[in-house]
Amino acid sequence: MSSIYYGRLTVSIFGQSHAPAIGVTMDGLPAGEAVDLDELQAFLARRAPGSGVWSTTRKEGDVPEILSGLSEGYTCGSPLTAIIRNTNTRSGDYANLRDIPRPGHADYTAQKKYGGFQDAAGGGHFSGRLTAPLCIAGGICKQILARQGIQVGAHIAAIGGIPDRPYDPVALQPEDLLSPGQSRFPVNDPQAGQAMQEAIAQARADLDSLGGVIECGVTGLPAGLGDPMLDGMENRIARLIFAIPAVKGLEFGAGFAVAHLRGSENNDPFYMEGDQVRTRTNHAGGILGGITSGMPLVFRAAVKPTPSIGTPQESVSLSRGEGTTLVIKGRHDPCIVPRAVPCVEAAAAIAIYDALLEQKERSR
Amino acid sequence: MSSIYYGRLTVSIFGQSHAPAIGVTMDGLPAGEAVDLDELQAFLARRAPGSGVWSTTRKEGDVPEILSGLSEGYTCGSPLTAIIRNTNTRSGDYANLRDIPRPGHADYTAQKKYGGFQDAAGGGHFSGRLTAPLCIAGGICKQILARQGIQVGAHIAAIGGIPDRPYDPVALQPEDLLSPGQSRFPVNDPQAGQAMQEAIAQARADLDSLGGVIECGVTGLPAGLGDPMLDGMENRIARLIFAIPAVKGLEFGAGFAVAHLRGSENNDPFYMEGDQVRTRTNHAGGILGGITSGMPLVFRAAVKPTPSIGTPQESVSLSRGEGTTLVIKGRHDPCIVPRAVPCVEAAAAIAIYDALLEQKERSR
Amino acid sequence: MSSIYYGRLTVSIFGQSHAPAIGVTMDGLPAGEAVDLDELQAFLARRAPGSGVWSTTRKEGDVPEILSGLSEGYTCGSPLTAIIRNTNTRSGDYANLRDIPRPGHADYTAQKKYGGFQDAAGGGHFSGRLTAPLCIAGGICKQILARQGIQVGAHIAAIGGIPDRPYDPVALQPEDLLSPGQSRFPVNDPQAGQAMQEAIAQARADLDSLGGVIECGVTGLPAGLGDPMLDGMENRIARLIFAIPAVKGLEFGAGFAVAHLRGSENNDPFYMEGDQVRTRTNHAGGILGGITSGMPLVFRAAVKPTPSIGTPQESVSLSRGEGTTLVIKGRHDPCIVPRAVPCVEAAAAIAIYDALLEQKERSR
Amino acid sequence: MSSIYYGRLTVSIFGQSHAPAIGVTMDGLPAGEAVDLDELQAFLARRAPGSGVWSTTRKEGDVPEILSGLSEGYTCGSPLTAIIRNTNTRSGDYANLRDIPRPGHADYTAQKKYGGFQDAAGGGHFSGRLTAPLCIAGGICKQILARQGIQVGAHIAAIGGIPDRPYDPVALQPEDLLSPGQSRFPVNDPQAGQAMQEAIAQARADLDSLGGVIECGVTGLPAGLGDPMLDGMENRIARLIFAIPAVKGLEFGAGFAVAHLRGSENNDPFYMEGDQVRTRTNHAGGILGGITSGMPLVFRAAVKPTPSIGTPQESVSLSRGEGTTLVIKGRHDPCIVPRAVPCVEAAAAIAIYDALLEQKERSR
Repeated sequence: MSSIYYGRLTVSIFGQSHAPAIGVTMDGLPAGEAVDLDELQAFLARRAPGSGVWSTTRKEGDVPEILSGLSEGYTCGSPLTAIIRNTNTRSGDYANLRDIPRPGHADYTAQKKYGGFQDAAGGGHFSGRLTAPLCIAGGICKQILARQGIQVGAHIAAIGGIPDRPYDPVALQPEDLLSPGQSRFPVNDPQAGQAMQEAIAQARADLDSLGGVIECGVTGLPAGLGDPMLDGMENRIARLIFAIPAVKGLEFGAGFAVAHLRGSENNDPFYMEGDQVRTRTNHAGGILGGITSGMPLVFRAAVKPTPSIGTPQESVSLSRGEGTTLVIKGRHDPCIVPRAVPCVEAAAAIAIYDALLEQKERSR
Repeated sequence: MSSIYYGRLTVSIFGQSHAPAIGVTMDGLPAGEAVDLDELQAFLARRAPGSGVWSTTRKEGDVPEILSGLSEGYTCGSPLTAIIRNTNTRSGDYANLRDIPRPGHADYTAQKKYGGFQDAAGGGHFSGRLTAPLCIAGGICKQILARQGIQVGAHIAAIGGIPDRPYDPVALQPEDLLSPGQSRFPVNDPQAGQAMQEAIAQARADLDSLGGVIECGVTGLPAGLGDPMLDGMENRIARLIFAIPAVKGLEFGAGFAVAHLRGSENNDPFYMEGDQVRTRTNHAGGILGGITSGMPLVFRAAVKPTPSIGTPQESVSLSRGEGTTLVIKGRHDPCIVPRAVPCVEAAAAIAIYDALLEQKERSR
Repeated sequence: MSSIYYGRLTVSIFGQSHAPAIGVTMDGLPAGEAVDLDELQAFLARRAPGSGVWSTTRKEGDVPEILSGLSEGYTCGSPLTAIIRNTNTRSGDYANLRDIPRPGHADYTAQKKYGGFQDAAGGGHFSGRLTAPLCIAGGICKQILARQGIQVGAHIAAIGGIPDRPYDPVALQPEDLLSPGQSRFPVNDPQAGQAMQEAIAQARADLDSLGGVIECGVTGLPAGLGDPMLDGMENRIARLIFAIPAVKGLEFGAGFAVAHLRGSENNDPFYMEGDQVRTRTNHAGGILGGITSGMPLVFRAAVKPTPSIGTPQESVSLSRGEGTTLVIKGRHDPCIVPRAVPCVEAAAAIAIYDALLEQKERSR
Repeated sequence: MSSIYYGRLTVSIFGQSHAPAIGVTMDGLPAGEAVDLDELQAFLARRAPGSGVWSTTRKEGDVPEILSGLSEGYTCGSPLTAIIRNTNTRSGDYANLRDIPRPGHADYTAQKKYGGFQDAAGGGHFSGRLTAPLCIAGGICKQILARQGIQVGAHIAAIGGIPDRPYDPVALQPEDLLSPGQSRFPVNDPQAGQAMQEAIAQARADLDSLGGVIECGVTGLPAGLGDPMLDGMENRIARLIFAIPAVKGLEFGAGFAVAHLRGSENNDPFYMEGDQVRTRTNHAGGILGGITSGMPLVFRAAVKPTPSIGTPQESVSLSRGEGTTLVIKGRHDPCIVPRAVPCVEAAAAIAIYDALLEQKERSR
């Protein structure tokens, strides 16, 4: 099994960049959940390439067709499958990449794994395009979660070393999560966003690319979600977040900063707020022992710079077994971080909804 | 499912800190693999509490009994189950923790999840003790991998902000991985190790604790292991690493540093070394598109400071619904990072062996 | 999870009878396997409704579209998804079935399970039409198995109590398995087939339907496939065979006849034929301890008579909570056994190929 | 994966006949379920070898030790592991079976699968002894189900061709299911039971063995359990029933008799009984479309005659590659059907409880 998130909710992703279609099947959705296709389309639009400085000029309509699983606008209890046709493809751009692997891409590893039978066109199944079906599944989960008072949101925490204002992990509110997503460049601090866009413009001018960090928050979670040790919230989210091709790091709450903290600093003291148990700080990121604490869940994912860059790069010809210089043509985002933001939300929403379904079994 | 790593190799962990036993079942081990019990015991000893300044004075024999799956020293194709009896327990230390949850522990979240039926003694299933069965499974995988030329090792990368010399991700050799593990305080740079131990001693004196970072490396991997998108090497390792209770962050290769790199810096150029394809740098940590590249696999995990500290802490009485002060007694490590090093190796070894088994199916 | 066969090969089926499409995703296919689409189409044609006396007059083109997983005619290592569009639907036929459940159908149980949100049109996800994607997956597996010398075939063993000549479980040859499938009414004994068709014609004339038994055989299997206790060959095949809606019984080898046999009769004596170990009889159906013995694998599935019949039937109005008489209109097969024969082959082929992939891991 | 039932409840069985222990881990049990160990012991006693004419004279204490998962008599939300030590073993009885496979046993297929590394002593993991852990898991599920008004029971439907009075699938009551299990030879009709025991005594005198059929019934099931297509009730039960080593056939409701029925006979008419929807007949065995209908669930399993018989048998020497005569010594049941009755109940109870847990997710 490779492209299946397997849990109470099973999410199976298929497709290659230049195959007839990409898509997703969700198995395990309860019957009777409304799916708002307009809202889903709006969510997918946040991932689609656009006119911003940071984005490719490719057009991807990304209009999903729901093939099954819905009846009169509601989930019907059967697997929900949605596909997106691949239309705007330029195979010629990638013709020689089976022989000369692009640094930072999966061309070489796919060649070794699949013995030359991989679909190399457009990156095949490794293309960032495969995050679109992830967003379909996550977008549907987000809708269901929102109706239960659980809000998932994310923003660009940093690009090219320029930080955005982080979420307040103690006081985070649903509206804090909704607001960044209303912009195509989702940040908390517009000035930081402006500086990031200038850095991207500069990288583009240099035929180069930038990486960044995305921070995701979730509010409204009940305490008690997540199943230790292998299905804790960190494990579930990690499994889905690392399905986003460019992610190379993931941290919850204080994350790597715990390495500099003492226990007396890192521990989050409990206190009562009315009849609610809360913590004064939230270095745990809302997760203790793999289980949600009822505090906001907060994590960050590191996104590497787009490997496709316009500058000439050192590579090898696999057929000739010798070094060569590679010049990548085609259209590529100088920074995919903005478009990866909804993907991170999608991954989180799937993980959380899956844990929520599992928790229903656990209750007597 | 909560405590099962489910793959080609299935690893199912069970037990509570003060239950009769803890243990593990491995299903899917090929028949005919030798298991060296002395070597396994030596590996487990690296995780056991010891006499160092960083460790609790509790004694845990941690001698596993193999109940099934071996016949005359070789795996026999049936599930391998090993258990460790719990003997040295002091339940009284934890008597009131069901009412007054310890900050940074799972006491509160377990109470919410299991409605008061959780086994609270000694942290129950959430205890760090549950990493012993993980190490049994991982230790067996390590032995099998080593016979195939794949070496897994780890060292303390930092404690309390003091860094060790990192692995060289390009030139890493098997002996670099073996060496730190021969010490109970596994570091690359003994001087850094000395400074860390002094910092731990200071934290202990302050009734406090320290966190850190563990770096893990793997050499000898063939290119082609890992199954995108959900079963790539990052996804597999992440799922297992976050089973270690104190881990709050995980990064591969350059990890979060990618946020500061340009594509031209982060991309690892390919070149030929004889008939081998290699990369000049290894920011990818040996993984491209979720698949091993044949370069050393390198990742780091952030380990939070031990939440059990001797200083009084703010907490709440769940029964009375009011704030209170908690003083934790009992014996606790002021820093669990050294003992977590073999756990990280174990998690990595399971993930890699699982991917290796899966790759056998993929080959025609 | 509901419609997923989960193993080394994962087969995920989706769609409802009157949704835009039905389809299947296969995850885990090794790269580099040729898929002959004409041969697949010919296999699907055996399942399609036709002009025979036993079949509905509905036309189902059942031309699958491969959306992903193939590249230049070979599997590329990524999930293979194929869909069939639903075109020839007459929703009006089923309008009142949400209120008045058809005896022998899933109308009532789906109503209870999904709370009225099920897609009732055409039986929704419960329709026999969902065996078409099963046949796509199984047809692809059959092709791969055949190239490895493993032949899967089936015939009508009985309809309406009229028996066909059974397979010889000891001497079964690949050509015995190929031959019945070349007819739209696959039997070993044409005279028996003629009598069956007459019985079907009579049942149709009586506005009634007939059930039957399908026998499946597999030759060329190596000894050693199947993983006890829960993933033995019987368990795997059972899980897939009972995915065919009308199947109510399954037996391997001597099956229920073992209840009349003594051990001395039922045991299959081993003997050497050259350097091959064989058994004189094959009451085990080629499976001992869940593992293939190298003898032909033989099993039989009982298929109930089509529940949709033209005669008036007693049912209830769920909305009014009172009894009523139901008259089913629409087009229905008076006997689905002939069309179920390739479905049984498909189920067997998936189970066997899955076990074959797993056995690759087991070999050192 | 081989010995794992994988669902909402995961049941992992381990052990070999002559290994230190056999056992089971249940992952996914909700916290707070009482486990009555005396009742469990009484259930296991029904499976244990006894003093009857039909049974071996071996003594198996079969007292399980609960290693984890319980706290003060209640499930605590963590995996429940129970083991049974193997004490009464006579390895010498089986010394030459690695070379000369017993007809009807897994000796030969295990040899081929595991390349000689299998644990051959006492049948290893293939021994009927491995049904004891299945009964532990099933016995716990039975207790939980009974508290929810769901009763699982079974009786010997036939031995050596002598039939017992079958359950009435329409009028079946919980007390009908409880009664047979109070005898060590569980039948509905004591006279039939007497005749069966005489037949067994005769077979024993002839150094031979007998097979039979077990019928299982379940009352109190709500309508709506089971998840088509691959996780319907038939699929789930089948997967577990075929884990019992001697089972070679399985049928639900009318089962193979559907091959002789017309649709007008086989369809179960719906009617109202008060405000309850019921069916006049129950040929469906309480399952429509894989989902429970609320009528009693009824199925039958065919159990082959014990392959270990005292009469000399034809076999081969694998080392010499030539035919030989095998005489099996040791103690063996001349008929295992009576002892298999609780195993069938256990398998059914696991499948049903698993479906019940899953249904909780499905409800909104």
